[in-house]
Formats: sequence, C-alpha cells, structure tokens
Amino acid sequence: MKIKKVAIVGGTHGNENTGVFLVNKLKNALPEYKGLELKYLLANPMAIKNTRRFMDHDLNRSFGIKELQNIESSEYEFNRAKVINYKLGPKGDPKYDFIIDMHTTTSNKLGPKGDPKYDFIIDMHTTTSNMGVTFIFSALNKINLQLACFLSERNDSLNLYYHPPESKNADSDLPYLNSISPFGLPLEVGPVPNGLLRHDVIEMTEKTVRDTLEFITLLNNDSLPDFPDSLEIFQHMETILFPCDDDGNITAYIHKDLQDKDFCELKQGDPIFYTVDNKTIYFENEFPMYPVFVNEAAYYYQNIAFSLSKKISISTHLT
Amino acid sequence: MKIKKVAIVGGTHGNENTGVFLVNKLKNALPEYKGLELKYLLANPMAIKNTRRFMDHDLNRSFGIKELQNIESSEYEFNRAKVINYKLGPKGDPKYDFIIDMHTTTSNKLGPKGDPKYDFIIDMHTTTSNMGVTFIFSALNKINLQLACFLSERNDSLNLYYHPPESKNADSDLPYLNSISPFGLPLEVGPVPNGLLRHDVIEMTEKTVRDTLEFITLLNNDSLPDFPDSLEIFQHMETILFPCDDDGNITAYIHKDLQDKDFCELKQGDPIFYTVDNKTIYFENEFPMYPVFVNEAAYYYQNIAFSLSKKISISTHLT
Repeated sequence: MKIKKVAIVGGTHGNENTGVFLVNKLKNALPEYKGLELKYLLANPMAIKNTRRFMDHDLNRSFGIKELQNIESSEYEFNRAKVINYKLGPKGDPKYDFIIDMHTTTSNKLGPKGDPKYDFIIDMHTTTSNMGVTFIFSALNKINLQLACFLSERNDSLNLYYHPPESKNADSDLPYLNSISPFGLPLEVGPVPNGLLRHDVIEMTEKTVRDTLEFITLLNNDSLPDFPDSLEIFQHMETILFPCDDDGNITAYIHKDLQDKDFCELKQGDPIFYTVDNKTIYFENEFPMYPVFVNEAAYYYQNIAFSLSKKISISTHLT
Repeated sequence: MKIKKVAIVGGTHGNENTGVFLVNKLKNALPEYKGLELKYLLANPMAIKNTRRFMDHDLNRSFGIKELQNIESSEYEFNRAKVINYKLGPKGDPKYDFIIDMHTTTSNKLGPKGDPKYDFIIDMHTTTSNMGVTFIFSALNKINLQLACFLSERNDSLNLYYHPPESKNADSDLPYLNSISPFGLPLEVGPVPNGLLRHDVIEMTEKTVRDTLEFITLLNNDSLPDFPDSLEIFQHMETILFPCDDDGNITAYIHKDLQDKDFCELKQGDPIFYTVDNKTIYFENEFPMYPVFVNEAAYYYQNIAFSLSKKISISTHLT
C-alpha cells in the first residue's frame, strides 16, 4: 500500500481562517516529501472572501453522489463540490462536461479526463468547541488506525472521534469533502472563534499536518514503528438538540459546567442546559457519556447543542 | 438630573447573540423599575436573522449626522440607523418623511413627530477578545464617572475604557448607536465567538444591565452612595495594524503571549506578532501600554490587530 498523491485543503468553510492561512503558508514552506505529489487547495474561495461558512449550502455536506451528479443545481457550493471532485477525485461517475470552474482564468470548462485520484486528503477545519486536536474518521480501516496510533504518540492530547455512517450501506455516500478520496485526515482544531487566527490553533494544526505527511512517508517506505495493540477512541452515539419553544426559538443554552468540556465524562445528574427562566436541566442518561462539539456555532441553525459519544477501546489489529 | 426613559438594545451586530437573547429574555423578566420607562429593541433584525455582523454597513458606525441626514443612501443599516434615531433619538435634525421602517407591519412610513428622546441607552455587545466586562465611554461627564464607580464596586474585574473622539470638535458626530442619547452604557463582554451563546457571558452581561438600572434608580432618588475620589481607567491611544504584504494580505498574527492579554501591561521587548516565516515581532514602545480588543474578529477586514491604551487615574470630582 503506497500513498502517492496528497491534497492539503483549507477554507472548505470560509470563516475557518486557520486552514486558509496554512494552505497559503505551507505551499511555500513545506519541504519536498520524497515521492509525494502534494497539491494545495482553497476549497471555497467565495465563502473565504466573505468570511462566511458558506454562500448557498455547506460545502462539506455537498459531496454526496446524488449532489455530485445533479446537473440541475445552481448553488455555488454544489458547483464547487463538482469542480473539487474533478480535481481530486472522482467519486462516483461524474459527468464532467457540465461543470464550469469559475475560479480558473484560462479555460474554465472542464472536459472529460482520466482518473487523477488523490489517495489522501488533509482537510483542515476549526471549531468553536474545545475539541483540541481531533481526528474524525468514519471507517475503521488499517490506514486510519495506524495514523491514529502515529498521531497519538506525537500528541498526548489528540482525540480520536469515530463517526460511522448512519446506515451501514451508506458508506459510499457520505457528504464530506474527504469522502472523495480513499484515505484522509478530516481535522478539527479548537476552540477558536470564526473569522480570526489564533497562534496556538495554527501551531497545533500545522504540527498535525506535518506529522501526517511524515506518517505517509514512513508508510510508503514500510518503516512505520510498532503500534500498541489497542487504541482508545470516542464513538459517536447521538446528537442532542437545544430545548426550543413552539416557534423553534432556543429556550436554553449550554450550562457553564458543560461548556468547554468536550471529551470529558458526563454523568447522570450533571448540568447540561440553563433555561431562559433560570432553571438547570440535568443529564438523565444512566450511563456516562462523552460530549463532543459542545456549543459549536455552525450547528445553531440546526439547533444542535452537542453530540454524545462513548469511549471504547478497539484493537489495532484488523482481522 | 433625572433619567426617565431607558432603552435596552441588543443585536446591533447580528452575530453577537448574547444581546439578542437578553433583549428577548429581559423584556419578560425585568421587574418594574419605579418611574423608569423601559424600551427593548433588536437593532438589526436582518443581520440577526443571517447571523452576520451587518448586511451592507456596520450599523454601529452609521449614526453620524451626515449619514442620518443623507436621503440618498439605500444601504440597509443606514435606513435602520434613521429608524432607530426616530425611535430613540433624535440626534441632529432628521427629515422623518423619507424614512421607512420595513420591520413594522402597520404603517411603516414614519411621520414627523415630537422629541421622544431616550435619556439612556444600554447597547449590549460582545467581543472575541478577552475583554471581560468593559464599559466604553467617550466623555468624562458626571454620569459616566458615577456609573463607572458604581459598576466597579459591583464587579472587581470591570474594565473602564475611555475612548475620546479623535477630534475635540467631533464630539457631536460620533457614529455609534449610543451617540443618539445623552447618556448610556456601550457594553462589551468577552471572550465569546460570534454566533453562539455562552452562559458566563450572558450572566456577566445581564448582571451589568441590572446593576445599571439600579444605578439609574438610585440616581433618580438622589441616593447614590459615596464614591472614591479617583478612578483607574484605560485611555485609548492608538490602533495597531497587522503586518501585511503589498497585496494587503496579513503576514503575521497575534503572538500567543499577547493573545487574551487585554488590559495587561505590555512592555518593551514583549512579543506581539508571529510571522508567516516563523519570526517573532516585539513591542518596541519605550513606555508600557495596555492592549485592548486583542484579535477581535470584526476588525480583520480593516487589518486592525489591537489597540493600545494607557492606564491613568482620574478624579471623580468634576470641576
């Protein structure tokens, strides 16, 4: 197993400045990685220009096969997804002749072409939640587990968040940018407000990108170190919504005892919400869970307050 | 000196959710303050709906007399400023017959009317900077100094930021919403990312609003307590820009040693920026200063990195 072509992507969400900054920095700063073909991409130029998460539709929810093959859609991000799928993918069986890349100054009509598949995509995201450095993965394949071990050894506080597809059959139709390449690192680093750069967040993100490229180089040279037999990961269980009134307005917010407590144990009786009429709402689950994406600004429009995960130990030896 | 009519305003910036939430909460929750007429206002409904700071132009820079009297402007916020000036002001000599309130369902053409002047406006803002609770004032009048003393005694960590007009003659033409009433509390609370609610920030903001209303009640009853003879404030001195390349792109960001250090002493030789090519830029000023609004997301479009203030002690006895 060799990984030859790696894409480093930032600005999939236009208000997450760290990835944008690092694409521009690293394309001039990274050393040549022997045998690796690196590509740098700012995924959502219009949203970046406007410092908005997206213009018409969340780009990181636009890579489902249905969206990629819909020739009727006119939303900016659906077009971007098709262009990126052309450049880094393809996933599915795209019809290239209707895709126009409005950010290319030369010929912007994309003709049919061969398969330029990038083997690995690093997609740099940030979050307003206190997620530290979190590697999110949706499949327990060998590369993901090896990368998880490798990054964990380089960073004591790395979090591993396993978010399997809702349906077992849906594996091939995840809507994320990362889903167009066979392997990759969807990276979340926080907390950081949208629309600004924080030194610590840039530092953590850059280090993880460099560690990942080193991992790939070692993998290609069959010189990865030995890894532990098991790994502790957080498996996504469910999404918790804000309490709302009949008009859909939020009537409670994250309790201060839960704020910033991502990946910390949440027990029955712990406060989770505080209501507009000054009441505390407590966690009722009989078994402890681990909250994730606590108070992420981008999820408010869907009334998502946080997610719950369970901490499990998995074997790193695939059968 | 009596203050009778008080306006409590939130959502002047549509992505600062705290003020919006508190307007909606307090209009149902606040007790009757004897002799006070309270009005609640969401200043920028369209920006609130879109969770954006503003649609066309920063509303909190739209209250200059020139903007209020310009009948040609079609920007959303310039219209809102005129409507708010009609409802809470007026400042200047507005021509009411061309103002249309698009957020009123009944008659939305505003006719000429008398002077409904609100004596005091509480305008609730938040910031991504670590400003704690900061009272910003642009004039050293008796009410401001008394309120500053009163709030300081209720809150040990309150910061007082004195930002006088750039020109001594410009006092009557400040562009802020607060400038349309003779007295008021422009309040900044942080750190909090835009687009979300934090329990601690809501709590600090609500407490300060309630303390301010109590201050006004005591003032009206001539029963304010004795205040200390002097007060420590931070006086704005200058604005510091991010280093940029020839194309105007930021080439350095706030150094991690300066991040979150609002109102902390900054001495010659302290790190302030970290550059894209990994160099530290140091503070060169011979005399210590106090940084304010460090890394505020809303100021990036103007390349503003932070402001500098000096700490001074002023007499609370006006001559």
